[in-house]
Amino acid sequence: MGRWLPDAKQRLRSAALELIAEQGFAATTVPQITARAGLTTRTFFRHYADKREVLFATNGFPERATRMIVDARPSLGPVDVIREGLREVAETAFEGRRGEVHAIRDIIRSDEGLRERDLHKRAALAEAIRAGFVLRDIDPVVAALLAQTSVTVLYIAVDEWLDRDDGARLADLVEHSLSTLRGELVGLGQT
Amino acid sequence: MGRWLPDAKQRLRSAALELIAEQGFAATTVPQITARAGLTTRTFFRHYADKREVLFATNGFPERATRMIVDARPSLGPVDVIREGLREVAETAFEGRRGEVHAIRDIIRSDEGLRERDLHKRAALAEAIRAGFVLRDIDPVVAALLAQTSVTVLYIAVDEWLDRDDGARLADLVEHSLSTLRGELVGLGQT
Repeated sequence: MGRWLPDAKQRLRSAALELIAEQGFAATTVPQITARAGLTTRTFFRHYADKREVLFATNGFPERATRMIVDARPSLGPVDVIREGLREVAETAFEGRRGEVHAIRDIIRSDEGLRERDLHKRAALAEAIRAGFVLRDIDPVVAALLAQTSVTVLYIAVDEWLDRDDGARLADLVEHSLSTLRGELVGLGQT
Repeated sequence: MGRWLPDAKQRLRSAALELIAEQGFAATTVPQITARAGLTTRTFFRHYADKREVLFATNGFPERATRMIVDARPSLGPVDVIREGLREVAETAFEGRRGEVHAIRDIIRSDEGLRERDLHKRAALAEAIRAGFVLRDIDPVVAALLAQTSVTVLYIAVDEWLDRDDGARLADLVEHSLSTLRGELVGLGQT
């Protein structure tokens, strides 16, 4: 039954996204998802804790984010660590998945509980980035500022990437969003 | 019974914070709060929708934030609008309430549901700031970046203000947090 195919996780996600698009998040059940994917519920629960997880599980970001920051070259300043980290995340975790990420955003926006989970996810990502910078011996307040700013820059760029239809690469939008924020703040204190 | 005293709302909040400190958030009931405050439950529900609201109701920020941004002098650039707005919020909504804000933070941290509500509150504040900038004809992406950054800067400064014990003014910490972020980002693009 294909239960052991290495792409079971992706097949379950695709099936879930199709079903949710057709009938809404609340009406979609795990047995429906597994039936559509041609897999068993046992397989489902090997990959996902519940149906909400299907929407969020791709983003096992937090631990990766901490590690990326800790492992970044020692010569890199904090903002360049962010810049390289966000570029890598854009290229490896988002680029090529625009349709799926768009569908997931629509679903999250349709459900209060999912919006909450999404806020949590972003807070957890910021906390992981902060922890990474603290491990790099960055001052804790600076670490917290940079961590929140990274999450801001990433998700605003993701929104723009999903809203545009011109084939722009997320990594370029992230870079643009970071330098736009910089440009806005640079004016500060010169008035 | 003092039901109509103008400070009923504050008395209810003080009573709630005392009780929650003594026995925890979950164990504290509305009748206990009103008994401690010497007020009726009817009065309670005139001021607060539920006991969670007691912790969040002071921050009727969102609408105020939109209005402050729309009403700021037309000559001010966006970052100076933020700077003046955050200074005003620090002085009028936080300064002088450090003990109470500290107690509320402790309570929020102790309860998962309250942490969620707090994330929501911050997201709503960011959305209100974004809306204000859009009404000022700022580019939507810039508006979103500045809005999230304002919330970041405010709450990181609030945390610092609550963690320090040297009588620092929140408005100064906000200013410092904003210029620290600026200083970090300025290095960007020069490497």
